[in-house]
Amino acid sequence: MGDRFFANLNESTPGQTVTLDAGESHHLVRVMRGRPGDEARLFGQGREFAAVLREASGTGAVLELIAEMSPPPPPSVSYTAAIPFLKGGNTDFLVEKLCELGAAGIVVFRSRREVAHGSAARLTKLNRVALEACKQCGRADVPVVLGADSAADAVGAGGASVARSLILFEGDVTLTLSQAIRGAGNEISSLPWTLVTGPEGGFDEEEINPMRETAATLVTLGPRILRAETAPLVAASALLTLAGDF
Amino acid sequence: MGDRFFANLNESTPGQTVTLDAGESHHLVRVMRGRPGDEARLFGQGREFAAVLREASGTGAVLELIAEMSPPPPPSVSYTAAIPFLKGGNTDFLVEKLCELGAAGIVVFRSRREVAHGSAARLTKLNRVALEACKQCGRADVPVVLGADSAADAVGAGGASVARSLILFEGDVTLTLSQAIRGAGNEISSLPWTLVTGPEGGFDEEEINPMRETAATLVTLGPRILRAETAPLVAASALLTLAGDF
Repeated sequence: MGDRFFANLNESTPGQTVTLDAGESHHLVRVMRGRPGDEARLFGQGREFAAVLREASGTGAVLELIAEMSPPPPPSVSYTAAIPFLKGGNTDFLVEKLCELGAAGIVVFRSRREVAHGSAARLTKLNRVALEACKQCGRADVPVVLGADSAADAVGAGGASVARSLILFEGDVTLTLSQAIRGAGNEISSLPWTLVTGPEGGFDEEEINPMRETAATLVTLGPRILRAETAPLVAASALLTLAGDF
Repeated sequence: MGDRFFANLNESTPGQTVTLDAGESHHLVRVMRGRPGDEARLFGQGREFAAVLREASGTGAVLELIAEMSPPPPPSVSYTAAIPFLKGGNTDFLVEKLCELGAAGIVVFRSRREVAHGSAARLTKLNRVALEACKQCGRADVPVVLGADSAADAVGAGGASVARSLILFEGDVTLTLSQAIRGAGNEISSLPWTLVTGPEGGFDEEEINPMRETAATLVTLGPRILRAETAPLVAASALLTLAGDF
């Protein structure tokens, strides 16, 4: 893959110059020791360019865009993953993996059973984790990581309808995730989904009941217990499999 | 779930006594401070029993089997995951996750691009990781973790036919994993599969060529790059999704 650097490329065309933010400038010039004339790859907003470094500033490196490239397309189905803040490195881990798995967005919510809570600094760090993961995996967009106060607040995240918000629940549910997704028929990929997974130990009653009262769809991943850091990856993999991406 | 202890329960019936191995005895009696008369749950070989501790020995605890329970059934499709030895904790991580995902067996092979190599002690530790993961996730069998000298040696592991050995490859492959699995039609679950995934950076030519020369099926997981510790989980999730387990 080589080193790729994030930039705002929304309206870019070859011949233009772009200035990297401080973090990316530091990486390119201080860490990678980029010098004027060096080639680099820029990505952002789903686009990717071959570029040449013109001003090797460690705080605002300037590059000239040479040619637009064809990065891997996004998945055929758009989804937002809503996950709880988890202990240890598991939230970071999940953000990294969900970037690899093409999530269009990530919402991290406070869960009643987890002591880990999100601060503004925590969200800033998680967005940095997402950026680093996207550099590695070759995708040309970076999903935004947003916070939410509860699992219920994450229902419908990313523009999904409430009915296409799938709540992975270990309780009294017999509808499987794939049955719910297959139920969309030919519409699997035409509208976004939200995949909401719970904390270690599962959603408690006060968490699941507000979601039961909506039109959100409660689904199961079967009788074996998947850990909180496993279920989101399984759910995303299942959706992408049924959409034909895998 | 509560604490569960592994035992050989192959031919057990209620009323019999069983003796735990040293590791499990230590956990029950020294760590959990089990005393005669305490209840415990035993599992192994796909069976599970409620039991009562009779001899609280830290090296050979004896329990009486009271009643047979109904543990979660294995997945409807049997598969063996073949993964490379990876750096850091990623091999342990994958063994844990593959246990949650119901793998019938796990083969860890030496890969040309990974410095991490397997020793007998390493395999012993990985089997311990598998045991601990199975205690947590509620499954009643424990997959054996075997070593192999190369990826090619893992083709057909777990009794899969060579054609049902799917090699996940980032190179010149257009057949997707789900196309290969769907190609089995109604036979998805009737015979075992082997899912072979590569090291960070992918299989090199000297690794992939011997597998090309067999009837093993090379498949892709699409254009985004999945890390070596992600691809096995995606492949297993896809297989279980298409088999109807998720």
